[in-house]
Amino acid sequence: MTALLDTLRTAVGAAHVLTHDDPGTDLSAWERDWRRRAQGRALAVVRPGSTTEVAAVVKACAAHGTSIVPQGGNTGLVVGSVPDASGTQVVLSLTRMNAVRAIDGDNLTLTVEAGCVLQNLQQAAANAGYLFPLSLAAEGSCTIGGNLATNAGGTQVLRYGNARELCLGLEVVTPQGEVWDGLSGLRKDNTGYDLRDLFVGSEGTLGVITAATLKLYPQPAARLTAWAAVPTMEAAVALLGLAQQRLAAGLTGFEVMGQFALSLVDKHHPQLRVPLWQESPYCVLLENSDFESEAHARALFESLLETALEQGVVTDAVVAENLTQAKGLWHIRESIPLAQADEGLNIKHDISVPVSRIPAFCAETDALLAREIPGVRLVNFGHLGDGNLHYNVQAPVGGDAAAFLREQEERVNTLVFDQVVRFGGSISAEHGVGSLKRDKLPHYKDPTALRLMRAIKAALDPQGLMNPGRVL
Amino acid sequence: MTALLDTLRTAVGAAHVLTHDDPGTDLSAWERDWRRRAQGRALAVVRPGSTTEVAAVVKACAAHGTSIVPQGGNTGLVVGSVPDASGTQVVLSLTRMNAVRAIDGDNLTLTVEAGCVLQNLQQAAANAGYLFPLSLAAEGSCTIGGNLATNAGGTQVLRYGNARELCLGLEVVTPQGEVWDGLSGLRKDNTGYDLRDLFVGSEGTLGVITAATLKLYPQPAARLTAWAAVPTMEAAVALLGLAQQRLAAGLTGFEVMGQFALSLVDKHHPQLRVPLWQESPYCVLLENSDFESEAHARALFESLLETALEQGVVTDAVVAENLTQAKGLWHIRESIPLAQADEGLNIKHDISVPVSRIPAFCAETDALLAREIPGVRLVNFGHLGDGNLHYNVQAPVGGDAAAFLREQEERVNTLVFDQVVRFGGSISAEHGVGSLKRDKLPHYKDPTALRLMRAIKAALDPQGLMNPGRVL
Repeated sequence: MTALLDTLRTAVGAAHVLTHDDPGTDLSAWERDWRRRAQGRALAVVRPGSTTEVAAVVKACAAHGTSIVPQGGNTGLVVGSVPDASGTQVVLSLTRMNAVRAIDGDNLTLTVEAGCVLQNLQQAAANAGYLFPLSLAAEGSCTIGGNLATNAGGTQVLRYGNARELCLGLEVVTPQGEVWDGLSGLRKDNTGYDLRDLFVGSEGTLGVITAATLKLYPQPAARLTAWAAVPTMEAAVALLGLAQQRLAAGLTGFEVMGQFALSLVDKHHPQLRVPLWQESPYCVLLENSDFESEAHARALFESLLETALEQGVVTDAVVAENLTQAKGLWHIRESIPLAQADEGLNIKHDISVPVSRIPAFCAETDALLAREIPGVRLVNFGHLGDGNLHYNVQAPVGGDAAAFLREQEERVNTLVFDQVVRFGGSISAEHGVGSLKRDKLPHYKDPTALRLMRAIKAALDPQGLMNPGRVL
Repeated sequence: MTALLDTLRTAVGAAHVLTHDDPGTDLSAWERDWRRRAQGRALAVVRPGSTTEVAAVVKACAAHGTSIVPQGGNTGLVVGSVPDASGTQVVLSLTRMNAVRAIDGDNLTLTVEAGCVLQNLQQAAANAGYLFPLSLAAEGSCTIGGNLATNAGGTQVLRYGNARELCLGLEVVTPQGEVWDGLSGLRKDNTGYDLRDLFVGSEGTLGVITAATLKLYPQPAARLTAWAAVPTMEAAVALLGLAQQRLAAGLTGFEVMGQFALSLVDKHHPQLRVPLWQESPYCVLLENSDFESEAHARALFESLLETALEQGVVTDAVVAENLTQAKGLWHIRESIPLAQADEGLNIKHDISVPVSRIPAFCAETDALLAREIPGVRLVNFGHLGDGNLHYNVQAPVGGDAAAFLREQEERVNTLVFDQVVRFGGSISAEHGVGSLKRDKLPHYKDPTALRLMRAIKAALDPQGLMNPGRVL
């Protein structure tokens, strides 16, 4: 491996090839995943500074038959960007490639390198007077390359789509070390197969995304947030339909939160003052992005909520008076994962089903779990507008939560995933497959789809060196 | 081939296998393309009535090594859906598979078979109270399967995207005759490679789309149309930016039309009464879809146009008083292709460049053509909001137009396409590649992209039987 390491040092500079042989070097930031579920050991962490350097690294690894694990901010939730324990894989870290290459206001596009942190990218767009709408919990440390490689979702998907929908063009280094310059800022280009969307969401298994051209949007004049108690999940779906009709594309957020999820926030973070949670099995957070004015946004919201109260799909509601209150409401929503961690270990899911089937899915699955695992507690919340629930399962009160996870996680997963598929859903809505859900795909995915995926992988990466053991 | 024909007759019923041996049968509707540029000869036209039958047809053809040309409404503009002249290819017509399988209002989705005519699909959505926004000139006879296979564009792309963006799931028969059931109505599903977008836009070369799950939208309360004279193309781009800021997602149409294009409508269709064309080098048609009311739409439009007049990006404007006037304005826009045909033969282009570069592209390319081909006349119009121009070239006045096309078409194409690529554009924005532009790709497309496309084609269709000679 000395020959490979020498080639890599020549390619990117000795300072940017980190190995365990370097005295005092701690590689755990690159070797351990965000949720600390896996700790691998890398042959080396290589940090190229340009696309040409990425290509040289990939070519060198291909020539030596060495596997590559591309990595951005290493914030993924499915163990998709850390090396295995073999000590033979190269971690290709993109974080030095973090430049915003260009902003084109008239074209509403921005071109950025893969290692740019999402929050910095949002800020660069805002500084130029535009909105880059991708927004998610890890935005302070995740990178846009990772967001694209995993087709990240988040809180604005209802209006603006996943990372996929925000991407117009890509620059990619292929498993052979060629550079595909697909950095197009075009809204329309029908000259062949859609390679862009093949690389987006492929989790580093087909090549390395080095840069992207992304869509920008005008900044709204006002963003208003409301919080509504709804009597049933059916009512939450009805409220969503009403809000889509009244606010149309102005509806940029629609989050549902179950009573138990909110009770945990109330219990562990009482200073956040969760509104209305005691009266209702579910609360909903709505966001209205308005291009006219705050007054217009408020009038639309009030009229919507009035109709919803009349129709009985909302029992009570508050509209944030100002930005501080709005942030406070979002903060409650975003504190659910923390509050459930405070309560103890739990089994996490990231599922989707068609919006229309969510009420029946929840009713049936809630009952199934209560029957099968007495005392189980459901932390149900998520992006209802996208049909995406984080349908998490907390151990019964008073029991040994660690033992519960050890003994019940597989069984709970099977119960939930079987239900998801029965309702036409997906077992991974926005987090991806990685290593964690790889074993599940053969059971839950259409066999023809899997065969097609394997054929594509073999065609583009015949040596199987790109992020092996992920997805397929 | 008798054995194959017998198998096909057994698979779909003898009445649905049409051949030249059948007395009195005229297959030209399937063998000749829409623009009458090509007339092929089919071994047979096969019209399956179900996905199972499509799979049986594909399997039979694969076993006999017989090529398949999938066909919908046969309205494509790049000779992509008619057989070659060999008499050995099977035309697989999807038009009998035209059912709307399901409408799911709460999920805002509709599932439809590939052979459904676009207008019928729009109507089915409207009957259920929803909008299916894909809209284009051929909508009365094109099919949704063809729209998806070619990633069709049209007049509402600015707000709702191409056919690709409107599609959530597909059912596809692979070149091996397997059925991939990907008819998902999910907004989020990150369980593997994006096969959907690989088939969308692949022009029948990777498999046969048999059904799709599509996005629906709420119906707007009002659709208002305005017509504005702008002093320059730069002003048109500035007006677009202003309209995007003010109307946001309400801006559903933004078409630009050059003075010569409008003069042809005025000359050949004087009853249409083209407004404002004599005062200005370009006019713009804007559409505002409003979810509140017509009054609200009108107030927004008036405020927008007032600002635009103040800023000098608009010199004069009219807002349609009613639906009849609005339809009249759209009718003028849509009459340009007919008017240019009335004027004589011309060379058509369907190009895109980044919106920000359109003014420079037009200025340079207009001058280049005027210099290289004295007397040439440019019929320039299109979807400016998408950076998509139909930059057509009309023969000089008084000359022999047929001779002009014969002698100059290749040269004009080269001049225009070289400019397009120089400006970061695409030589086929919305019409696809088909047979017509296949020879151009090796010259104008990134070589790595072409290699990846060929690898995917070989992996999914190793026999090369799906629509051979198209795209690649």
